[in-house]
Amino acid sequence: MQWIFLSLITISLSFLSAQKTDEQMIAQIFETALTQGHSYENLRELCKDIGPRLSGSDNAAKAVEWGQKKLQEMGVDRVFLQKVMVPHWIRGEKEKAHLVNSASLGDQTLNICALGGSISTDKTGVSAEIIEVQEFSELAKLGKEKIQGKIVFYNRPMNPTHINAFRAYSSAVSQRSMGAVEAAPYGAVAVIVRSMNLRIDEYPHTGGMRYKEEVTKIPAAAISTQDAQLLHQLLAKEKSVTVYMKMSCQTLPDAPSYNVVGEITGSEFPEEIIAVGGHLDSWDLGEGAHDDGAGCVQSMEVLRLFKAMKIKPKRTLRTVLFMNEENGLRGALEYARLAKENKEFHLAAIESDSGGFTPRGFTVDGKQSKLQQMLSWLPHFIPYGIYYFAEGRSGADVSQLKDGRATLMGFKPDSQRYFDYHHASTDVFEAINKRELELGSAAITGLVYLIDQHGLK
Amino acid sequence: MQWIFLSLITISLSFLSAQKTDEQMIAQIFETALTQGHSYENLRELCKDIGPRLSGSDNAAKAVEWGQKKLQEMGVDRVFLQKVMVPHWIRGEKEKAHLVNSASLGDQTLNICALGGSISTDKTGVSAEIIEVQEFSELAKLGKEKIQGKIVFYNRPMNPTHINAFRAYSSAVSQRSMGAVEAAPYGAVAVIVRSMNLRIDEYPHTGGMRYKEEVTKIPAAAISTQDAQLLHQLLAKEKSVTVYMKMSCQTLPDAPSYNVVGEITGSEFPEEIIAVGGHLDSWDLGEGAHDDGAGCVQSMEVLRLFKAMKIKPKRTLRTVLFMNEENGLRGALEYARLAKENKEFHLAAIESDSGGFTPRGFTVDGKQSKLQQMLSWLPHFIPYGIYYFAEGRSGADVSQLKDGRATLMGFKPDSQRYFDYHHASTDVFEAINKRELELGSAAITGLVYLIDQHGLK
Repeated sequence: MQWIFLSLITISLSFLSAQKTDEQMIAQIFETALTQGHSYENLRELCKDIGPRLSGSDNAAKAVEWGQKKLQEMGVDRVFLQKVMVPHWIRGEKEKAHLVNSASLGDQTLNICALGGSISTDKTGVSAEIIEVQEFSELAKLGKEKIQGKIVFYNRPMNPTHINAFRAYSSAVSQRSMGAVEAAPYGAVAVIVRSMNLRIDEYPHTGGMRYKEEVTKIPAAAISTQDAQLLHQLLAKEKSVTVYMKMSCQTLPDAPSYNVVGEITGSEFPEEIIAVGGHLDSWDLGEGAHDDGAGCVQSMEVLRLFKAMKIKPKRTLRTVLFMNEENGLRGALEYARLAKENKEFHLAAIESDSGGFTPRGFTVDGKQSKLQQMLSWLPHFIPYGIYYFAEGRSGADVSQLKDGRATLMGFKPDSQRYFDYHHASTDVFEAINKRELELGSAAITGLVYLIDQHGLK
Repeated sequence: MQWIFLSLITISLSFLSAQKTDEQMIAQIFETALTQGHSYENLRELCKDIGPRLSGSDNAAKAVEWGQKKLQEMGVDRVFLQKVMVPHWIRGEKEKAHLVNSASLGDQTLNICALGGSISTDKTGVSAEIIEVQEFSELAKLGKEKIQGKIVFYNRPMNPTHINAFRAYSSAVSQRSMGAVEAAPYGAVAVIVRSMNLRIDEYPHTGGMRYKEEVTKIPAAAISTQDAQLLHQLLAKEKSVTVYMKMSCQTLPDAPSYNVVGEITGSEFPEEIIAVGGHLDSWDLGEGAHDDGAGCVQSMEVLRLFKAMKIKPKRTLRTVLFMNEENGLRGALEYARLAKENKEFHLAAIESDSGGFTPRGFTVDGKQSKLQQMLSWLPHFIPYGIYYFAEGRSGADVSQLKDGRATLMGFKPDSQRYFDYHHASTDVFEAINKRELELGSAAITGLVYLIDQHGLK
């Protein structure tokens, strides 16, 4: 094929004879995923029939039932649940926010949403002057004198010069996770954080935030990037800008929930587990399509493709639908605890939690020898636009399995559009392209197939 | 960076000392494009202030003016127009189509659009039984007896197993371009062609079709993939399916139009031209955002980035906004004719006409030695997700420059979503992601920079 990256062909030559069958199998996996795939229809069910699935919610419970039923219908060897207690935060009534008596804009409405885990405002809401900062270090410089009684407005944008959008996210997300804790000691009454979004648009993006036991808890909200820019411009124009905000979110007692696990027992090395997973919970504003319905249906599709193609794996294959990745990681921690308790050996664990976009590669967290072996397989993936296996972190869920033996991997689709949807009301089924999703399913299944066939030495 | 494809690093080592500056320049080009880029706002103007730009239309004339003005405002050394006479086809009133008296669905509406270049139906429309085929070879088997007086319904889907969506397009597009000519000799009264779309949705996709002088001209329409499936199912269920369709399109006399060319004169080798282009015309249903507003604004951005970054090119750089790629190629033919007449030497010509999606690589149509030289530059692009330079066709416009000396290239973004939008009402500004568009601008500019610095030996 003309578009194969030519200098890679040399790498493949030495493996060509041994890998003829592998090459054909990968081709068949891609063809099956693209012509008889179930991931897209499964995602439609998860997004449209169930919807948002925040930990502890009724929908999260429905999603557990759905995942269990789907895996059972595939006819895998074993389907089981792992019980966990999860945080149970609820948003309550839709948040309200507006400018107060702005000289140029009056009481114009602002698009905000509570950050996950935040306390509510008073029942009547809070009205206070805002003070804008870009870095935590500015808080100390401003001091209590200037911050006391105000709403701290964190407005550092994601750094657009990072080509990998997840790095751009890392450059800004501390404002969301730690903003309240950092501002409260200076007497701030609330914080408003610029949404983690590379676009300028009207949608606020929620996401996890933390309190510390010894620090006063103050309400924390995200504001759309468009309104963040507006506040910034207003502050330049009007001497003082006052914002009213009202949130009625609250944290209820922990609730019971479950990881869902499906398994095909290996025929030769049943004690060697190859796990692939995504997280079943999602934030509550959208439908959790890219984050992480996509990862769930792709992980399920791996086992389904093995069944549909009548491939009997040598090793034990597992699909894990983790609960509570978004605001607690309780599912992943419990899965890892049980794996240790049961002395399970995870040969490999692959996480898909970077969206249902067009595949690019895989990151690998494990011994160099494993990565080297995987690189010998890369020529099989190049024709499908998957061109790198590289050292890197796997994912929040499977990284809990790190024990010096397991090779942990992250599936890496293209990242450019991920933060257009992440944790926002825009993360719906319609934001997914069927082929891109299916190519991801095929990429992961292809890699699982090769690991199953050859092991990881 | 962790996600660089590791085995490529070896390639880069031998070039490292010489290319330090190149690497920095590429980084600066990407940073500037992502933080101070104009391509997205320019595309907004072209799509929203002007809109669809079919050859011969008032909007196409406005687009010529706009392109000329934009290039002049950049302060390039020379902006000029190249006059061409272009086909002038108009759609007329919105097409109408519905089932006629279907036993199960009555007179349900069908989503169709005239194919570009088609004649109209009679003023009262045409109502006829449809006969479904997948291949031209079926027409001869069915013969006049079964086809006479009917509407031939071409329903071969794009082959989804091709990973490159343009190959899937090639597998089906002959139905659109040649369907009328193939069916008319058997007495067909019209043809309806399944839209060139990998999705199942409600939007008909137009596109060029041809007649032959000696073959009776019959009307030709595209139907949405959803309705194509509906017709297929109905044919299986009801013995006969009759469709009514009415189109009032017509071909007017050829109209004058223009290529728009902007140029920065080279400081050392002004006679060596590096051209980069897209096409300014578009189909009339959408806003021509991906096809090919994206290619136009990216081509303009190359020169603008050179100006903004104060890089004085050694060679002559040209942005070419070609007219009439969609239904005649008249602009490209005239550009190539004038190049020959003026004995111009195109060292390289790069076309961007594959959508404003996340960049993947470049195809190269030229001598092997040039491709080898380009491969030595590849390590500079890997950090930006651009991982291949490979032999392949360039593009419809720049390929007219093929003369044994010019190296012709095609910019290749990810192809998966292209046919969701191609030639349909969905191809609007909102279908473009700012970062993906800007990364494309930077990729092309980076390549132009290296060609300008080092030539192509």
